[in-house]
Amino acid sequence: MPKFANDPKRTTWLSTPKDTDFPIQNIPFGVFLTRDDIITIGTRIGDYAIDLGALHQLGYFEGVALTDDIFLQDTLNDFIADGRKTWRAVRNRIAKIFDAENAELRDNADHRKTVLFTMDEIEMQLPVLIGDYTDFYASIEHATNVGTMFRGKENALMPNWLHLPVAYHGRSSSIIPSGIPIHRPQGQKLPAGAENPIFGPSRLVDFELEMAFITTAANTMGEPIPIEEAEEHIFGLVLMNDWSARDIQKWEYQPLGPFLAKNFATSISPWIVTLDALEPFRTESPKPKKELLPYLQFNGKKSFDINLEVAIQPKGKKETVVCHSNFKYMYWNMSQQLAHHTVNGCPVNSGDLLGSGTISGKTPDSYGSMLELTWRGEKPLKLNEGGDRKFVEDHDTIILRGFSKNKDVRIGFGEVSTKLLPVYKR
Amino acid sequence: MPKFANDPKRTTWLSTPKDTDFPIQNIPFGVFLTRDDIITIGTRIGDYAIDLGALHQLGYFEGVALTDDIFLQDTLNDFIADGRKTWRAVRNRIAKIFDAENAELRDNADHRKTVLFTMDEIEMQLPVLIGDYTDFYASIEHATNVGTMFRGKENALMPNWLHLPVAYHGRSSSIIPSGIPIHRPQGQKLPAGAENPIFGPSRLVDFELEMAFITTAANTMGEPIPIEEAEEHIFGLVLMNDWSARDIQKWEYQPLGPFLAKNFATSISPWIVTLDALEPFRTESPKPKKELLPYLQFNGKKSFDINLEVAIQPKGKKETVVCHSNFKYMYWNMSQQLAHHTVNGCPVNSGDLLGSGTISGKTPDSYGSMLELTWRGEKPLKLNEGGDRKFVEDHDTIILRGFSKNKDVRIGFGEVSTKLLPVYKR
Repeated sequence: MPKFANDPKRTTWLSTPKDTDFPIQNIPFGVFLTRDDIITIGTRIGDYAIDLGALHQLGYFEGVALTDDIFLQDTLNDFIADGRKTWRAVRNRIAKIFDAENAELRDNADHRKTVLFTMDEIEMQLPVLIGDYTDFYASIEHATNVGTMFRGKENALMPNWLHLPVAYHGRSSSIIPSGIPIHRPQGQKLPAGAENPIFGPSRLVDFELEMAFITTAANTMGEPIPIEEAEEHIFGLVLMNDWSARDIQKWEYQPLGPFLAKNFATSISPWIVTLDALEPFRTESPKPKKELLPYLQFNGKKSFDINLEVAIQPKGKKETVVCHSNFKYMYWNMSQQLAHHTVNGCPVNSGDLLGSGTISGKTPDSYGSMLELTWRGEKPLKLNEGGDRKFVEDHDTIILRGFSKNKDVRIGFGEVSTKLLPVYKR
Repeated sequence: MPKFANDPKRTTWLSTPKDTDFPIQNIPFGVFLTRDDIITIGTRIGDYAIDLGALHQLGYFEGVALTDDIFLQDTLNDFIADGRKTWRAVRNRIAKIFDAENAELRDNADHRKTVLFTMDEIEMQLPVLIGDYTDFYASIEHATNVGTMFRGKENALMPNWLHLPVAYHGRSSSIIPSGIPIHRPQGQKLPAGAENPIFGPSRLVDFELEMAFITTAANTMGEPIPIEEAEEHIFGLVLMNDWSARDIQKWEYQPLGPFLAKNFATSISPWIVTLDALEPFRTESPKPKKELLPYLQFNGKKSFDINLEVAIQPKGKKETVVCHSNFKYMYWNMSQQLAHHTVNGCPVNSGDLLGSGTISGKTPDSYGSMLELTWRGEKPLKLNEGGDRKFVEDHDTIILRGFSKNKDVRIGFGEVSTKLLPVYKR
């Protein structure tokens, strides 16, 4: 039997769909409500959700150093705080339990009934209590596109952009898991040519295709994290849709950055795929265009090759995929982001979420937002069903998907799917 | 015996210093570590800290609808979530227990010994687990001063400033209570005339004189809070020092706002003074210079007259008060801030912290930051002891104080005091 969770040769006794995002090599972590209305920490193989709290109570983690209640919690924060050694031991054990050759659980119908759920029996929750949420602006293509639209081609990138990973703090309270619908936000907008703003529904609601990583307790206040240690503090990644209201954003964002244009909703995929599971998909980062200060210089492959796509599904219609991008396009990688975030001593805790910013590629079909895809609405997108789109319309569902694949294995994220409802009525 | 906590005629059987910030009419809430190393929720009268957990266990809250463990917690979040009716009932009961005419606790030496602590026996903690921290930019004098320095007099206020309370999201993880020292941050700075940034200690570390309010669970996602209901969701206020590194800020803040220049530390005073206790100090807000959109219009007195001051104390020297300001100078009041924050449906939770932004007045001695007081270092401040200051120096302690006073009563906040240590060494 293979020893490590990542071994591509391992097969499982669970029946899994061909090309699933969740083969036995993935073993992501999430939190779900079971058919008995109990919240538990779990993992997923194929289309089965696995109750890790129940598995632990049944003794399947014997020999792994874990507290009794580590999986019987509403969030993964404590488990994540236990550190990388524990995450690895648990993933390796789960792989072993579900290995095709291991009869222990496979041949115990009572136990299987207790720990296995089909996906339609459960309800995914937010996987972590997010203490702080930071969003970067790490794709040079996205920053250039947006900068060109807002400030013209000459001033597209601010002078600081090539020297540091620009970021801002976001709102934790409006981060929701996939499946929760949101309302079109209202706010102040300045009509073209007007002197005074008006109030009303945003007419330019947009998605942003992002990924985000979740940290463990990383440092004490005052202490920077050196770039070469950064990955030790990264638990895993999710897909993220950073909902944006472009008309509200344009009027409010000077001089302190986006606020109400962003904090009405941010959606994430519910399964955290560990950095360990993504190990086979390491790749080179884009070459820096300026020499970096030492604290941002790194060795080795710190980017990850993760295919990303966005689909729009109008109400009652088939979806249209409108964007294909890749996580590896990010100019600033996660190690640089975490090193920069803490270089001033800012403390990072277990369960913090650090978003990539919109991930756009070089070609127009790889742009990660409607703002860029339609170039501010000038070139509407043609959907296969449901008409054209300049921005997101009421009752549209936006679906982000992501996966890594090589000849041996596919490691995916599933999806984050969010429907936009009309303005909230009291 | 007076019925309500605010009654200025009430006296207490506890001996309290003349002109204390914490007369029996104040009854703030905080969290502290007792001499027995137990964390409890408490209040303060004069120089006594009172263990509300112990008082409750001894039966002193009989008849007030409270769960048994409401005060035996590490944070005030659950108590705050119980709502204004509960806060008022508890304050009224505490006033009664310590009323000069009430013999119940006064004459019970055993009980007194259990619930009363002197301030030097305890260690104040953060009063709430801060889910989200927002900082406004609500003083027109501060925004004008900073805008003039950064962009010139003509462009000092951005076009949006008079139409909405500008704000940005801050970092919760680096919010600390009074008494915890911080380290001088390092980061990227662009030397004058240089093309490329350098890395090193910030040379322009600054305080910002602010107040902040703490909310209860206010709305569900999607639902705006009408301005006339906003105060129902405000539990109370603290003093806040929003530490800033001006050289880091200048280089990084475009286009998404301040990040590392702010998130290394934010200090707050540990006792939350309730909005109820501040009721006698309501006052008019500044008259709006532009007609406001309906959701920001209000009736009545929504500002509060709170005297504020900042002192610098060099190591081993006497302090010098360098600034006198007032919370009432804020152009945008708390009701406007909360209505604006939620107008897009952004959810506000129990324990969220909303800062005012630097509170500057019209006269140079009322400016709430070193940046303004020394006008970017051009006019150093003369201290009574310890030399001149352009910005904060290593081993300086910055002390913010605040109180309201009329002929009947003084309601104060105590202080938030933070020492700046040199750059962190690993």
